Amino acid sequence: MDAQRSPATFPTGTTLADLGEFGAIDVLTARLAQGDEVLVGPGDDAAEVRLATERALVATDVLVDGRHFRRDWSAAADIGHRAAAQSLSDINAMGGRTVAVTVGLAAPPDLEAGWLSGLADGLAEECAEVGASVVGGDLTRSDVLMISVTAVGSCSGSPVLRSGARPGDVVAMRGRQGWAAAGLAVLGRGFRSPRAVVEAYRRPQVPYGAGAAAAAAGATSLIDVSDGLLADLGHVARASGVLVDLRRESFELDEPLQAVGAALGVDPLGFVLTGGDDHPVVGTFPSAESVPEDWRVIGAVHAQDEALDSGPLVTLDGSAYDGSTGYRHF
Amino acid sequence: MDAQRSPATFPTGTTLADLGEFGAIDVLTARLAQGDEVLVGPGDDAAEVRLATERALVATDVLVDGRHFRRDWSAAADIGHRAAAQSLSDINAMGGRTVAVTVGLAAPPDLEAGWLSGLADGLAEECAEVGASVVGGDLTRSDVLMISVTAVGSCSGSPVLRSGARPGDVVAMRGRQGWAAAGLAVLGRGFRSPRAVVEAYRRPQVPYGAGAAAAAAGATSLIDVSDGLLADLGHVARASGVLVDLRRESFELDEPLQAVGAALGVDPLGFVLTGGDDHPVVGTFPSAESVPEDWRVIGAVHAQDEALDSGPLVTLDGSAYDGSTGYRHF
Repeated sequence: MDAQRSPATFPTGTTLADLGEFGAIDVLTARLAQGDEVLVGPGDDAAEVRLATERALVATDVLVDGRHFRRDWSAAADIGHRAAAQSLSDINAMGGRTVAVTVGLAAPPDLEAGWLSGLADGLAEECAEVGASVVGGDLTRSDVLMISVTAVGSCSGSPVLRSGARPGDVVAMRGRQGWAAAGLAVLGRGFRSPRAVVEAYRRPQVPYGAGAAAAAAGATSLIDVSDGLLADLGHVARASGVLVDLRRESFELDEPLQAVGAALGVDPLGFVLTGGDDHPVVGTFPSAESVPEDWRVIGAVHAQDEALDSGPLVTLDGSAYDGSTGYRHF
Repeated sequence: MDAQRSPATFPTGTTLADLGEFGAIDVLTARLAQGDEVLVGPGDDAAEVRLATERALVATDVLVDGRHFRRDWSAAADIGHRAAAQSLSDINAMGGRTVAVTVGLAAPPDLEAGWLSGLADGLAEECAEVGASVVGGDLTRSDVLMISVTAVGSCSGSPVLRSGARPGDVVAMRGRQGWAAAGLAVLGRGFRSPRAVVEAYRRPQVPYGAGAAAAAAGATSLIDVSDGLLADLGHVARASGVLVDLRRESFELDEPLQAVGAALGVDPLGFVLTGGDDHPVVGTFPSAESVPEDWRVIGAVHAQDEALDSGPLVTLDGSAYDGSTGYRHF
């Protein structure tokens, strides 16, 4: 299979229009190694994969050029990594593992063949981190480049939902948070450094397997942080009918975040509380003792006080955080 | 659940931008009834569904505004029907049944709320034809309206692939073919009639269940007709290493097709041989006796003759068909 993963080469300027639909599909599929759980891979009306149980987890995410990524900010392989990570992370945050991914790709005809093969490499490499395969999809023409990724997987037990948090639970997080937002902030101002945060934006380091470990440890709720920590814990609080209070002191502000905050004149805590591209997993646990050791405790769950109906569902040291609380698409 | 399916009403001119991302998602999910096989529906990181086996079938198709549909040619519900049908038909053509569908929707902010709810109704109604549920997806902003549908299902036995056709097999088809292409042809010339073919274009009548019946009857290969009958049988011939010869006399040219052909001055057989939006299922069977009775025998499978390597893999009464052989996206 290694032979398939060597860099693809095309005559300079070769585009999708030159390759044709089926030629382009051949470029993609040649770079997508198929794992042992794939019974029918790309090339038929549908793919068939073997799950661990007869209960399938399914999640779909869409990325649009110029909105979720920029081709001058990220290489094709980076965008492939990030597109796959977004859906793989959703399955992770149910306590599951992804087995297969399909990709719906709408692309302009002047897209370069080398870009397409880079995207396929990035998608396949990210999937390989959890042992998943890109088993099929659809390629069509569009003036706007758009990537839709669907992940299919399963979990051994029951999935961990957003709705299970209970007063008295502790809130804990696994994975890096705030780095991608800092990277996006510097890219947006025309810089390419600090390199560590730019790389974090380009390729999230998702804590795959952490969701399943949390489920085994008795997590009462889990969510993927994609809208921002405050916003996503807001989803948990709403679904569970609880309040969440985060502790400011629990957030270490890593050096690169402090550097970006100082350079841009912003509070680096904002990256941690409202950034959305790192995809850590955050959850609630019945006690501090039940939190797996590589998770960081960041807060606690409280009962909703009827008198506080109009207040925020997620607070920082008991008060509303004075800043933006996550990205809204409309 | 019926109460949820009554027409949604919004103040005139309400758009996605007015609803906001989460308001728009509420509009969608309120219209998506969840079946018994749905363990976790919309609203969490992923959905969970119960399949018949631990082997999952997965298929994804993408529709782009102005390319796969036009909002002045089809109502929102029609487009929902057709978007769902495209992926459900892929699972049908493996011999399977779809249990769940996810939808990746990229939409402009000025899209009307009523259009969105119509789309959801069409998606849900088409899925209901096979007992499937729309269990989740993603909604994001884009200048170009784009719909990506992923179907997840399973089949009780082994799926029927494109690669199993053998010399001596008979070729048979179930479902209407050519009507949608005739409808598209008249719409493209500014007409809205004959109504029967325009309706066929707007809402395909997919022979759901026919794939599973064919599998049970011993079909050696199956394919969904989406690129055109000649083009798709070409995929079967290539994958199976065979030739396919179709019999012209086996195709009844229904009256509306003849009417459109006469009005536009084209051979209506072209709609049948190269049209792609009806989604019948075509397959090969080891004998005429093994073909289910509601299928039409349309040809036979022959061995590839090495001398004919450069000739067409699919012929009509032994000769190349003199016409376009299916839609190419690039």
